[in-house]
Amino acid sequence: MSDQMKRIVLASRPDGAPTADNFRLEEGPVPTPGDGEVLVRVKYMSLDPYMRGRMDDAKSYAAPVPVGGTMEGGSVGEVIASNSPDFKPGDHAFGMLGWATHGVLPANQLRKVDPDQVSITTSLGVLGMPGFTGWQGLMEYGRPKEGETLVVAAATGPVGSMVGQIAKLKGCRVVGVAGSDEKCQILTKELGFDVAVNYKNSDFRAAFKAATPDRIDVYFDNTGGDILGSALFRMNAHGRIVCCGAVSQYDTSNPAGSPRGIPGLLVNNRVKMEGFLVFDFAQRYEEARTELLTWIKSGQLVPRMTEFHGLESAGEAFVELLAGGTVGT
Amino acid sequence: MSDQMKRIVLASRPDGAPTADNFRLEEGPVPTPGDGEVLVRVKYMSLDPYMRGRMDDAKSYAAPVPVGGTMEGGSVGEVIASNSPDFKPGDHAFGMLGWATHGVLPANQLRKVDPDQVSITTSLGVLGMPGFTGWQGLMEYGRPKEGETLVVAAATGPVGSMVGQIAKLKGCRVVGVAGSDEKCQILTKELGFDVAVNYKNSDFRAAFKAATPDRIDVYFDNTGGDILGSALFRMNAHGRIVCCGAVSQYDTSNPAGSPRGIPGLLVNNRVKMEGFLVFDFAQRYEEARTELLTWIKSGQLVPRMTEFHGLESAGEAFVELLAGGTVGT
Repeated sequence: MSDQMKRIVLASRPDGAPTADNFRLEEGPVPTPGDGEVLVRVKYMSLDPYMRGRMDDAKSYAAPVPVGGTMEGGSVGEVIASNSPDFKPGDHAFGMLGWATHGVLPANQLRKVDPDQVSITTSLGVLGMPGFTGWQGLMEYGRPKEGETLVVAAATGPVGSMVGQIAKLKGCRVVGVAGSDEKCQILTKELGFDVAVNYKNSDFRAAFKAATPDRIDVYFDNTGGDILGSALFRMNAHGRIVCCGAVSQYDTSNPAGSPRGIPGLLVNNRVKMEGFLVFDFAQRYEEARTELLTWIKSGQLVPRMTEFHGLESAGEAFVELLAGGTVGT
Repeated sequence: MSDQMKRIVLASRPDGAPTADNFRLEEGPVPTPGDGEVLVRVKYMSLDPYMRGRMDDAKSYAAPVPVGGTMEGGSVGEVIASNSPDFKPGDHAFGMLGWATHGVLPANQLRKVDPDQVSITTSLGVLGMPGFTGWQGLMEYGRPKEGETLVVAAATGPVGSMVGQIAKLKGCRVVGVAGSDEKCQILTKELGFDVAVNYKNSDFRAAFKAATPDRIDVYFDNTGGDILGSALFRMNAHGRIVCCGAVSQYDTSNPAGSPRGIPGLLVNNRVKMEGFLVFDFAQRYEEARTELLTWIKSGQLVPRMTEFHGLESAGEAFVELLAGGTVGT
């Protein structure tokens, strides 16, 4: 057991893309666990895109890391001291131990990992946050049906590689978007994707179209920006776009052509945005009519109309309507 | 009964905002109903923003009006001849009769309207497509709860004026956005909105913020563009944005700062776009773990990782991760 603990602190907030200068290595004594706490020596630590958000001092779903504070992150390691009956030295555990060689947490913030069952590194990946993220995003929001086409961006990433594989297991045709031909090879040769498209190629849009002959039923978005834009134009009726992150947008405030606040704000606030057409609901017209008629008769609902007279005035009236010059129907 | 029928045809497709020149009045003989058909003399015709979409020769959820064809639209009028047992002269009926003084439709495409119950004009407004659109959009997608804040754009429009009033009846605090102080007065004085904001005022963003002290739970969007952008920044967690139309975008291809394809494509294809955070689903972690573990053990799910060694390399590794240089976790 080393006497020293190393940790990486946020030295400064990044201006655009982070650089190595934004981080600083510090050393100090290994902390001592208090009552009910457990000391873990880290074996594997996961690096994930969400950490970029923590480096900025902006309102988000989680508080930022303070300058000088240890970078946040999930790790898995071996228990070397425990003041909790739930853990003993030699156990393996996962927890948010930060970017550090050691960490102390209350026992209830650690999860035991059994190295005899699967590699402990899976608790950082397929059985950890990225795995759960891909699974939840698909199960709760994407809801892929057998035979549907699913597209996932950042497809070789921790979440994307899970999403594509799970969608294959659920019977989908799976298209991955990645940033190099080498990554595209991994997707089709190792991870079982049906087709992969390199978004850095100049013919990306044509290749993307060719890769989605039946268009897209579920688009799992990790990137925002141009790939989201391309997917929007290929969605099938009643398609679902699962917004999981916006890695392409983290370092930019409002790039030209990029949806302002979309998808970043949709993710931060778990917002749902859904388009609809009234024609899809003919079976509920009678229900609507009944409720509306009740309110009209009771005077609770005021019909508003702007009237024009004579068919000859229709063109002019329509121009005025579009210009916002009318009230009600 | 007049011997002549007047109709307005699409003279040319608009280039940007439509003008009166895009329409042409034509006259001809009143048509004769065939077997099972009904001839209606139009009393009221509704003008709606969706008609703008029909003037363009672009892929949409409905076919465009051909140049030289009668403009589409819903009307209500009196039956003057009928070859169907379901209608007799003197009845009133609603149908998609187009921009014309007379129209012939099969009886099953007409709906009888009872003038003794409510004004026949309601079948074009509160009891017609605009009313159903507002009701469906709220009931199916907005799902407002008592005490929540609802914001509606184009609030004095046929749909917007319904949405705001229905939301009030459902117990919401209702904020309307409109394009003149006069319209704002109508919203608060006549239609019972809690507050109205004029988006053409220079202090719109500050006024919008002040009007939504508890932020926004449901935003009903008819406009897209800047109002959508402002609403996005005020949404509460788990908020719903109902995309009903994009009147601000009809005449523009891709204005700066406007979400490309959003919300227009979401509406046309009834697409759902939803942001999520895995932390909201802790109660399903075990379910996820069980399913994922099964696939890992059977070899159907391949864990992918890129490993870096030594805590010292974490900063550099993170920079590479964000730049897309890694595969898997």
